[in-house]
Amino acid sequence: MDKLIKNLLQGSKKDCARAISIVENRSKGYERLLKEILPYTGNSYIVGITGPPGVGKSTFTKEVVKEMIKDGYSIGIIAIDPTSHFTKGAILGDRIRMTELTSNNKVFIRSMGSRGSLGGTTNSILSVIKVLEAYGCDYIFIETVGVGQSEVDIVNISDTVAIVLMPGMGDDIQAIKAGIMEIADIFVINKADKDGVSKTKTEIENMLSFKNDWEFRPKVSLAISNKGEGINEAIDNIKSHKLFLENTNKLMNKKAMRDYKEMDDFVHIKLEEMLNKVYKQINIQEKIQQTEGSTLDIYTMAEDVIQSLKK
Amino acid sequence: MDKLIKNLLQGSKKDCARAISIVENRSKGYERLLKEILPYTGNSYIVGITGPPGVGKSTFTKEVVKEMIKDGYSIGIIAIDPTSHFTKGAILGDRIRMTELTSNNKVFIRSMGSRGSLGGTTNSILSVIKVLEAYGCDYIFIETVGVGQSEVDIVNISDTVAIVLMPGMGDDIQAIKAGIMEIADIFVINKADKDGVSKTKTEIENMLSFKNDWEFRPKVSLAISNKGEGINEAIDNIKSHKLFLENTNKLMNKKAMRDYKEMDDFVHIKLEEMLNKVYKQINIQEKIQQTEGSTLDIYTMAEDVIQSLKK
Repeated sequence: MDKLIKNLLQGSKKDCARAISIVENRSKGYERLLKEILPYTGNSYIVGITGPPGVGKSTFTKEVVKEMIKDGYSIGIIAIDPTSHFTKGAILGDRIRMTELTSNNKVFIRSMGSRGSLGGTTNSILSVIKVLEAYGCDYIFIETVGVGQSEVDIVNISDTVAIVLMPGMGDDIQAIKAGIMEIADIFVINKADKDGVSKTKTEIENMLSFKNDWEFRPKVSLAISNKGEGINEAIDNIKSHKLFLENTNKLMNKKAMRDYKEMDDFVHIKLEEMLNKVYKQINIQEKIQQTEGSTLDIYTMAEDVIQSLKK
Repeated sequence: MDKLIKNLLQGSKKDCARAISIVENRSKGYERLLKEILPYTGNSYIVGITGPPGVGKSTFTKEVVKEMIKDGYSIGIIAIDPTSHFTKGAILGDRIRMTELTSNNKVFIRSMGSRGSLGGTTNSILSVIKVLEAYGCDYIFIETVGVGQSEVDIVNISDTVAIVLMPGMGDDIQAIKAGIMEIADIFVINKADKDGVSKTKTEIENMLSFKNDWEFRPKVSLAISNKGEGINEAIDNIKSHKLFLENTNKLMNKKAMRDYKEMDDFVHIKLEEMLNKVYKQINIQEKIQQTEGSTLDIYTMAEDVIQSLKK
């Protein structure tokens, strides 16, 4: 473990991967690992990238990272994949597009499943971020597939949230657009060589203009990621939001919020362990199965579980 | 409350809406309400409808329900909307399409946000189902927008899961498709008048043929919902899955699983209330904010929180 930590801090990619596996799976020693790297964390800038499926988030992220390593930055990429319900593992989809980056020494890429051990959020992601910070990443990009819960969680984790959209997504996308509008720090309309780009841009600008007391009005830019176009403008927009956060002391608040969230994640992990023990002790599932058909009072049963938990 | 429950059981739409609001918001009396209606629950068949945004799930659901009320069924519809992070309320998107059903006496429609009070899953949905069961719904349709967490949760709630897709969704959809493949009991390829329908159908059939020990092989059908085409075939497929569950005793297991899940939801609600009290007592957020920049040991802090919780 000592060697692993030493190598991680010295930038060993292999040990970084091992350290991530340890914290991700909460394997033996993960708490010690996290405690020991703590002094070396807190220095990465976190960019969340989200948007509906099919807009080209991976390609966009890849191009942004390619540009940024040219400027000498070290980059971490965490790709959150939908988790398979049955295998409990992540489904690797379009990550293959990033393979040209994996051999680069300045880039560390990791796929994670969208479900943590609690069945809810990806609750080890904050620990993974800590490992990547200790590894020395200047920027960490977190890419989430799809819409729903996931893009909301990204708000609590990221310093800058970039929403990637594409032209002409159909009117069904309205509901989702409204949901992500509120969390965006910058917008990128990818695939800008498709029809309807100006309409989509106008729609976003119109939505933004509903609010007139912006502290930082999200910037909207166009990109054609698979041709490498519009990437630098997007990077500039990320950096201008970063500058805003630094100048207003909001960056410190974001980091404090991540600390709080990670502490809260740990509390929930412990609670869940305790709860599972109680469930096993009282053989809960069997009990419910047996009384099925009758009017089992699940509300009183819940109270009993809580009492057992306190013991 | 007595009158409310009596009216609910007698099929008062207004009182059903009130009862749902009470259990959804966990307002005063919700536990009593749920306990008292318990003997009248457990008789609805739950159909989850999910799929990527833009495939026309709402229109499909509306047409299915229109056909089923012709056959005399009472129907409940729960539409899960992405929840706004800031308003904490649901964003009402394309629900407007269902308005022609709202005036029908045999149909009860309710929109819910995708986030429960715990920030994770929609944990009051099982209680809402109980109210709709007491109200007398034969079938309850749960429609979820989007992909990610939500379509996995629907597995634990629904008796039949119907996945709605459309032709030519682009290759980025592969990852999502793989995730929802595993949970589907039936497939509907909507908008089947669009290009690429046979390709999409073949893709799904190919994926299904990877597994050769199906107890119930999901059926794939086509639909053009906005023209009312293919609706009856989809209904037949739902009913044939229902028959399979009934004949194999699996329906009882599903109901028992819902009971277990609801009990577990209640445990988590109670735990969260207790946890929030502890956080307030020790002024946790302020504490973290103050020590930001230094190496706060959030792991030990989490342990302290657990100890306070047990008191």
